[in-house]
Amino acid sequence: MPSYTAPVKDMQFVLHDVLNIGASDIPGYEDLDRDTTGAILEEAAKLAEAALAPTNATGDREGCRLENGVVRTPTGFAEAFEQVKQGGWNGLDLPEEFGGQNLPYVMNSATGEFFVSANMALNMYQGLTHGAISAILAHGSDAQKAQYLPKMVSLDWTGTMNLTEPHCGTDLGLIRTKAEPQDDGSYAITGQKIFISAGEHDMAENIIHLVLAKAPGGGDGTKGISLFIVPKFIVNDDGGLGARNGVSVGSIEDKMGIHGNATCVMNYDGATGYLVGDLHKGMRAMFTMMNEARLGVGLQGYAQAAVAYENAAAYAKDRLQGRDVTGAKNPDGPADPLLVHPDIRRVLMDQKSFVEGARAFTMWGASLIDRAHRAQDAEADGLISLMTPVLKGFLTDKGFDMCVQAQQVYGGHGYIEEWGMSQFARDARIAMIYEGANGIQALDLVGRKLAQDGGKHVMAFFALVKEEVAGSDDPRLADLRDALKAASKDMQAAGMFFMENGMKNPDDALAGSTDFMHLFGHVCLGLMWLRMARAAYAALDGNTSDPAFHEAKLATARYYMARHLPATALHLARIRSGGAPVMALAEADF
Amino acid sequence: MPSYTAPVKDMQFVLHDVLNIGASDIPGYEDLDRDTTGAILEEAAKLAEAALAPTNATGDREGCRLENGVVRTPTGFAEAFEQVKQGGWNGLDLPEEFGGQNLPYVMNSATGEFFVSANMALNMYQGLTHGAISAILAHGSDAQKAQYLPKMVSLDWTGTMNLTEPHCGTDLGLIRTKAEPQDDGSYAITGQKIFISAGEHDMAENIIHLVLAKAPGGGDGTKGISLFIVPKFIVNDDGGLGARNGVSVGSIEDKMGIHGNATCVMNYDGATGYLVGDLHKGMRAMFTMMNEARLGVGLQGYAQAAVAYENAAAYAKDRLQGRDVTGAKNPDGPADPLLVHPDIRRVLMDQKSFVEGARAFTMWGASLIDRAHRAQDAEADGLISLMTPVLKGFLTDKGFDMCVQAQQVYGGHGYIEEWGMSQFARDARIAMIYEGANGIQALDLVGRKLAQDGGKHVMAFFALVKEEVAGSDDPRLADLRDALKAASKDMQAAGMFFMENGMKNPDDALAGSTDFMHLFGHVCLGLMWLRMARAAYAALDGNTSDPAFHEAKLATARYYMARHLPATALHLARIRSGGAPVMALAEADF
Repeated sequence: MPSYTAPVKDMQFVLHDVLNIGASDIPGYEDLDRDTTGAILEEAAKLAEAALAPTNATGDREGCRLENGVVRTPTGFAEAFEQVKQGGWNGLDLPEEFGGQNLPYVMNSATGEFFVSANMALNMYQGLTHGAISAILAHGSDAQKAQYLPKMVSLDWTGTMNLTEPHCGTDLGLIRTKAEPQDDGSYAITGQKIFISAGEHDMAENIIHLVLAKAPGGGDGTKGISLFIVPKFIVNDDGGLGARNGVSVGSIEDKMGIHGNATCVMNYDGATGYLVGDLHKGMRAMFTMMNEARLGVGLQGYAQAAVAYENAAAYAKDRLQGRDVTGAKNPDGPADPLLVHPDIRRVLMDQKSFVEGARAFTMWGASLIDRAHRAQDAEADGLISLMTPVLKGFLTDKGFDMCVQAQQVYGGHGYIEEWGMSQFARDARIAMIYEGANGIQALDLVGRKLAQDGGKHVMAFFALVKEEVAGSDDPRLADLRDALKAASKDMQAAGMFFMENGMKNPDDALAGSTDFMHLFGHVCLGLMWLRMARAAYAALDGNTSDPAFHEAKLATARYYMARHLPATALHLARIRSGGAPVMALAEADF
Repeated sequence: MPSYTAPVKDMQFVLHDVLNIGASDIPGYEDLDRDTTGAILEEAAKLAEAALAPTNATGDREGCRLENGVVRTPTGFAEAFEQVKQGGWNGLDLPEEFGGQNLPYVMNSATGEFFVSANMALNMYQGLTHGAISAILAHGSDAQKAQYLPKMVSLDWTGTMNLTEPHCGTDLGLIRTKAEPQDDGSYAITGQKIFISAGEHDMAENIIHLVLAKAPGGGDGTKGISLFIVPKFIVNDDGGLGARNGVSVGSIEDKMGIHGNATCVMNYDGATGYLVGDLHKGMRAMFTMMNEARLGVGLQGYAQAAVAYENAAAYAKDRLQGRDVTGAKNPDGPADPLLVHPDIRRVLMDQKSFVEGARAFTMWGASLIDRAHRAQDAEADGLISLMTPVLKGFLTDKGFDMCVQAQQVYGGHGYIEEWGMSQFARDARIAMIYEGANGIQALDLVGRKLAQDGGKHVMAFFALVKEEVAGSDDPRLADLRDALKAASKDMQAAGMFFMENGMKNPDDALAGSTDFMHLFGHVCLGLMWLRMARAAYAALDGNTSDPAFHEAKLATARYYMARHLPATALHLARIRSGGAPVMALAEADF
């Protein structure tokens, strides 16, 4: 069975040596000194290692069961969830007035990585609740906030997001769930929603569903959509639980992974719903928190890769098979450890350099969200909006690939469920699909975000890269700096291709959208590795007490630049081949 | 649930328009005219579509169960297997004296694709038997052949290959299973073997295990290994079944996929075994048929991608979601089909161009095996030996990727087991691992095959590419020809890098081994696409009755050249970065 040790030291390096959050001018960051974040991370690590990780394989094996309308979560989930609750982890970054601790979002992300690595399926019950809270915080009335948030922040109640219907996922304009106004100001909600994560389960007293539905008079498509709170149990004025509402679970899905999370078909049969925010403005309300939600899914992608890598590295050190071609490294043993073989090192370095780059990228993204929200910084908001599809799409595509690579290190044992490597790959697979499939992320990036506000945000990104390159005039950084410069040039050339061709024929841009998302992702991780290398040299120059750690960062930076980053040229070549090869076939030829 | 329609027309195109097998001078090919192969393929298609495919999902859902030492295969497997038996499919390319039809191996591969696409797990019971037959044919005594082969060819008995033990897979020199000589000339086999596909099941009267074990006096490592026949039931001199042998199934593995195939732990407890071939020459005997076995696994990789693609294309035509950005294509419907979206077309074209290229590559490889065996052609043998790791490693890596892409087309439904797309990905995953994990294929290619016989075979490959390019002087082929030339140049440059650096430091070559395997694979598929394009133009110039089919081949060729082939430059860049970045970290830094 796999093990998990949370990478506290690596996270501290990102937060302090790289992002220097303690010295940031973002409100709330002034308290985040190295000791404070260290203490929080250590507590999160303990919870992840001791309570969450041990139930991960059980969750996969047992899955959730629907019995007489009740969903039973796997053995041990309720006890582990109780510890998340007791630790107050759900309120870490939520307002104090509702029971939270009001820490910056970046700390929610940093601790979140550990929880997701340890048990992604279990963490989703909390993650969905956090998302629902954010939507109510942003758009709910004061009365709704007072009524629902304290119990949701404490995790006594959990939350869900209900968007998808059987005939529509991405294209929400097609939804059929209806909201009929009632005399008392509430609405009667009727329809069917599918793929509802944590839709029903046995770990909370109440479940607060946020539901998109069409109320009369809003017009066609997404314009007619409103957002509703539909509690499983009606909440009385005194805060106690009242009647069971007309919402029930129809079935739970048999999925490729995240078996520990109950993915439900939810039936709304005239259920009582309460409008959140403005009538017919439901899409806006649901998507306000999109940057956070998508960053959270990107985090799932690399967090699964992180735990998969950790186990693959341990296996490669332990398993004796074959001999080092340059001479035996374990001459007294029957064979050398797998780690001596260059191709095994290659995949481990692929994983390590991706995971550490992705961690820095995600925490940087989280700090931009903090800057946007806490300092009302429109530029930070524009930049994170631009990068959100990259965080989601690139990190989940690559995260899954890295889980598959980690599984491969185990040879035949990787394919046997008992060893746990298959679960990491199967669990990671969903992150490429939900919260907007990765093709949609690429479309959002190229079709919308790139040109937003006159292309201002992508220009700001390029300026940042240029500034980083200019600031890296230390000759020891020359190779890393040049690699990033070349990659950034490829990205600019791709943007130029879109500008010159995409206006005439959108297919010329959209055919290259996924390649652009990956190109952009590589430049982001290259930028992170240059920053990390600068931080490592700074630590070494400052006589760090842990030189091996910082030397390893430098070696890993060089690996990323040498072996991942050249992919930008391939993506550019594909982008430049345009739409014609992609669109050439007639429908009948497929 | 997925459907399956066997691509008979595409296979005929490869066999006749591209490989022109009817006009080949390989003994046995003279009978393979278009009508004959068409009739065989149509029969195989019927069996695959009507009998094998309908049990595929059941096999995945039910899996195999071990009950009191007996393995129960999933519902419907025995009936479907009976039809494979009755159709004589296992003997298609086996000698007539043992009940086979003595057709060329290429026809076994062509029909095999359909069977694997329809139900990979079920096909394995036959495939393992075929492999065991080949080993006995090559190394068994006449008496052994007479005793075992007729019943194995007819599939009344099935076969297995027993190599792996708990502590060793790749490194067979470590095996511990012992063979003690007995007075009657037989051996007593004792030890444990794991990952034994079709090790025990309820679809055959007897199971003939081929087992690697160490007999006294052979020395250390692989030198001491011999190959033994260990039947489940001892076969009497009259051919009837005698006593139950001392071999039993310990457990069956819970795997990521191919649930319908019983993957067994086999315990040998002084079981009676009969030496096959020479004492202490077991490795040679087991690996004689390696080219065929590995080509068969490469075929599994692309065959899963083929059926996954077929379903993804159908879904993309059917599912209405979003609007074409260049104008609605289904204005009277609520939305346009997924197929209008460039990014959906991109992944479908990725899959289609890979699958069709892989099919041609595999059939070409099978025809080289025929030439090597039937015409004792040493050059063909050298070429197919060189390309075998590419067929196995490249086609299974890419085949899995394409299954994942096909699954992605389904959005959320792709993650739900009921829709069947997850199974294709999970089943395809094993092909990257077994019959030599893909890292081992890359090591075999770069560490052994490239330099074999003074590099003669890779030179022969380059000459073939050059000849194809020279023969493609039709100006309509200019773009395709130039793309292949550039890719081939990248491959030559990679070979040059290995020559210049690998002798001084093997790590410089081995760190690039997987990249080289992929680079080589792309050049092979590029070569196939140039051949297919020539064939398509020839058909169009000859006023084919099916111009749309051949026009689609040309468009798909252009797609492959524009969007897959540029990957060679990336692989070259990674190869040239050498061993240093890969080997830089100390063990403790992982």
